[in-house]
Amino acid sequence: MQQVEAYLRERRDEHLRQLMDFLRIPSVSALSEHRSDVRRAAEWLAAELRRIGLNRVEVMETGGHPVVYAERLDNPGGPTALIYGHYDVQPVDPIELWTTPPFEPDIRDGKLYARGASDDKGQVFMHLKVIEALLAAEGRLPVNVKLLIEGEEEVGSENLERFIAAHRDLLKADVVVISDTALYARGVPSLTYALRGLAALEVHVIGAKGDLHSGAFGGAAPNAAQALVQLLATLHRPEGGVAVAGFYDQVRPLTPEEREGFAALGFDEEKLKADLGVDALPGEPGYTALERLWARPTLEINGIFGGFQGEGTKTVIPARAGAKITCRLVPDQDPERVLDAIEAHLKAHCPAGVRLEIRRMGGTPAAITPIDHPAIRAAMQALSDAYGAEARFIRTGGSIPVVGTFGAVLGTPCVLMGFSLEEENFHAPDEHFHLENFDLGMRALSRFWHYLAEGMK
Amino acid sequence: MQQVEAYLRERRDEHLRQLMDFLRIPSVSALSEHRSDVRRAAEWLAAELRRIGLNRVEVMETGGHPVVYAERLDNPGGPTALIYGHYDVQPVDPIELWTTPPFEPDIRDGKLYARGASDDKGQVFMHLKVIEALLAAEGRLPVNVKLLIEGEEEVGSENLERFIAAHRDLLKADVVVISDTALYARGVPSLTYALRGLAALEVHVIGAKGDLHSGAFGGAAPNAAQALVQLLATLHRPEGGVAVAGFYDQVRPLTPEEREGFAALGFDEEKLKADLGVDALPGEPGYTALERLWARPTLEINGIFGGFQGEGTKTVIPARAGAKITCRLVPDQDPERVLDAIEAHLKAHCPAGVRLEIRRMGGTPAAITPIDHPAIRAAMQALSDAYGAEARFIRTGGSIPVVGTFGAVLGTPCVLMGFSLEEENFHAPDEHFHLENFDLGMRALSRFWHYLAEGMK
Repeated sequence: MQQVEAYLRERRDEHLRQLMDFLRIPSVSALSEHRSDVRRAAEWLAAELRRIGLNRVEVMETGGHPVVYAERLDNPGGPTALIYGHYDVQPVDPIELWTTPPFEPDIRDGKLYARGASDDKGQVFMHLKVIEALLAAEGRLPVNVKLLIEGEEEVGSENLERFIAAHRDLLKADVVVISDTALYARGVPSLTYALRGLAALEVHVIGAKGDLHSGAFGGAAPNAAQALVQLLATLHRPEGGVAVAGFYDQVRPLTPEEREGFAALGFDEEKLKADLGVDALPGEPGYTALERLWARPTLEINGIFGGFQGEGTKTVIPARAGAKITCRLVPDQDPERVLDAIEAHLKAHCPAGVRLEIRRMGGTPAAITPIDHPAIRAAMQALSDAYGAEARFIRTGGSIPVVGTFGAVLGTPCVLMGFSLEEENFHAPDEHFHLENFDLGMRALSRFWHYLAEGMK
Repeated sequence: MQQVEAYLRERRDEHLRQLMDFLRIPSVSALSEHRSDVRRAAEWLAAELRRIGLNRVEVMETGGHPVVYAERLDNPGGPTALIYGHYDVQPVDPIELWTTPPFEPDIRDGKLYARGASDDKGQVFMHLKVIEALLAAEGRLPVNVKLLIEGEEEVGSENLERFIAAHRDLLKADVVVISDTALYARGVPSLTYALRGLAALEVHVIGAKGDLHSGAFGGAAPNAAQALVQLLATLHRPEGGVAVAGFYDQVRPLTPEEREGFAALGFDEEKLKADLGVDALPGEPGYTALERLWARPTLEINGIFGGFQGEGTKTVIPARAGAKITCRLVPDQDPERVLDAIEAHLKAHCPAGVRLEIRRMGGTPAAITPIDHPAIRAAMQALSDAYGAEARFIRTGGSIPVVGTFGAVLGTPCVLMGFSLEEENFHAPDEHFHLENFDLGMRALSRFWHYLAEGMK
């Protein structure tokens, strides 16, 4: 272990120069003019993987941007980890708000500024350097490792599910390791063990054949906008929380240990209010804001529309109105069952005189890896050791669909061992990565592989 | 009387040719390219008024399109009527849906097709021909008559209130007579004795400083769209009717006679449902649909908006959402008091975590002329005689702001003696006017002036 850390310490400048080369490639997956750059980033990765000693390195076609695959199976019969990450990056607009150009990496105040520095090229690169150091110092890796680095994460991983399904045997593993999430806060080693899922639908309320004049028909004709607000208002309880029958039926309750762990993080609700510019944080009663964000499902109206939206006044009775709705789901909610419950609720509460059109837009389940899973314990130990402080269990309120895909298609649990910080401007100008987490993260990852090998023996 | 009717009968073809000349002028007030046509229509009217024997005929400037004024004061000390109408017309788009061109009048099946045939050039012209016939047959008019024919009714009569206020003495009258409303149905002589008023406001709900990611903040951050639907849903009672405290306080109840009169019209609620394509006519309990349309106030959401309205899904928590609201008012509701009540209700029901911006857009009171007013009785008698059937009292659910202006500025009650039919496509392609009502309407108007002279002696 000391040899590995010495290797990384001694070659730090060289490694940062290599990472900067990787970051200079503008692999913006959303923009067709960068198509060849995206491929160039894949080729760069493949070449580096070959150079450091991975086997079967291949740039594989997906129908969209390619994935890079590599493996090193030093332990026949031993545990296998699949490292997932992405080499594509977000667009850079508004370009004028960058202090230094997004594809000319710059280090200032111990932070590396560039598009992709934290999301996710920097973290993918850390895995490569840890493998390189382990191979250099020990001649072999403690566990079998496969890498699947994709180029379409920032455009919704459109082709990935099909690719994974088509390569089940190739990708077979005991655990997936992903470094694409954030620490709880600076200096707080923390491991994300659960994500929320998603379920989406649209509801349209239809009244008369067409919009009507409120003078001629107001008082007798159904108003689709009014019916919509009456209908949508029934979805939540007046005191907060979702009023849909069955909505919470499958929710896995937080354990007392989890609640204690969350409470110990000292989440600052007053700071959140100030950050958002609001005087209350409304939500489901009986839970702290952090519990609601991480471990309770929600039903959000994302958009609402109907009737006249222009300047001034138009005395119209809208014939149509609608809303877009998404739910954040938690373990063990089934997205289809949640959508069934909402659809049944909407139909049961449809006001007189109007009819509904409901469009289900699908969903993805939440993901959770049991905190006593050997891979989770190995990661927690590695984080605690590397950072010199006890690692914390955290969740995230967001969703990473690929985690659901790994669970659903491969049946493989995920370890979300990420090293970015929420304030690092991923998807925004001046994206950066704190180099303290580059160093401590690699220290944690190199220990992790050893602990994983022991824990999963 | 017989002489007057004979005069109209004998000159019918000549009169229709004159009306067609008037209709050929494309006096579309909304379109600047027709500015000179609008003035040409005013000049045409003024010339015709001079020709038939009116005095003090003048095309008067308003800042926008001009008004035409004329008078004939044959009865010193006798009652004076102010005839109001408009010579401007609606735009003609979609032009391709017209069977014959909108400004090339055509008679088919006893109906005169042209833009403005019923709204309102045809009805203004009827007044001119009745005056012409009375003067020809009797040498004088039974009452003093003033005419105020404007050119901006179809664009909201923007300059009229100021014009009326600036010419109080010139326009002083005992009663205003307007022929710009519809009969209850074909063959049913009927008089509109009340109009609804209007009050308008916008409400905006504001949550966080900006739109938020529902993964990161869903469960703790206020959702402006959700708060809006909760807020708006409180405006109506679940069983129908407006839930705003004080909303109905000033409403003048229908008399038993009025309710009987409405019921006797045999309004067909099933037909209305079929016409609208709905299976219910929701509204305030305890009133028939016709009573709700004509004599009960409403609160309508005319438009609703907030958050993401595009294709697909966006997991956003909207920071802002809003609605446009108008109320149809009935006698004796004060628009400002109604807006006060709604504003107080909205503030009292504002959900936690959001704040409101309320924009009041003003209003206009309802109008009613007592059914025992001598002018109303004269009109009812004239209609019954001309149509050979007992005239009916009707109301309309719409608003004619100028009626409120005459009441507010001049203190003059209005008689709404209109001869169009709802199915005559005003504001739409193939506008037309049933010539049976051209004939019977002039017969009614010529009698009306005599009955008015007697009734107001």
